[in-house]
Amino acid sequence: MGPGKADLLERIADTGSISAAGRAMGMSYKRAWQLVEVMNAIFARPLVTSSRGGAAGGGAVLTDDGQRVLFLYRQLETRVAEAGADELAELTTLLRDMSDGK
Amino acid sequence: MGPGKADLLERIADTGSISAAGRAMGMSYKRAWQLVEVMNAIFARPLVTSSRGGAAGGGAVLTDDGQRVLFLYRQLETRVAEAGADELAELTTLLRDMSDGK
Repeated sequence: MGPGKADLLERIADTGSISAAGRAMGMSYKRAWQLVEVMNAIFARPLVTSSRGGAAGGGAVLTDDGQRVLFLYRQLETRVAEAGADELAELTTLLRDMSDGK
Repeated sequence: MGPGKADLLERIADTGSISAAGRAMGMSYKRAWQLVEVMNAIFARPLVTSSRGGAAGGGAVLTDDGQRVLFLYRQLETRVAEAGADELAELTTLLRDMSDGK
């Protein structure tokens, strides 16, 4: 898992569509499907289920595991960011100021 | 900064030598120097200073900023790992068991 896959899961939950989710991230249909296939393969049970075609044009939903993984990933991001905030802030003060583009 | 650069800083502090530090990580002399140059460039002040040649064969030391950056990075790793431990543990239980190599 990483930020790209988490964003894709979130957008699939929002849009009900793998292709729409990918499109919202500037990602090809093929790439979005590949990422879903990778996630479904690395987790014990699928994170996303999809149906093709039909009057509604198919659709995709997060499974219970998909929703849980997305929740845990977001919580991890938040907790980690909070936990490391002081160190990151001080590291930032030690970095060269590149805001002028030099 | 990342784990490789932090490890390199730590080994430079231990060995007093950029090449010995790189060697301990299975890294070429050139690669180790490149990483040091990158770190010295992205931070406002150098993290490593080195002297070449001489009877002692030159040497390298972490500057005050280098020591501080290494400390902050290690602290960040520890705090982040602690903060995310519960989520990571649960995510791990949701992953496919690949321990049999399949």
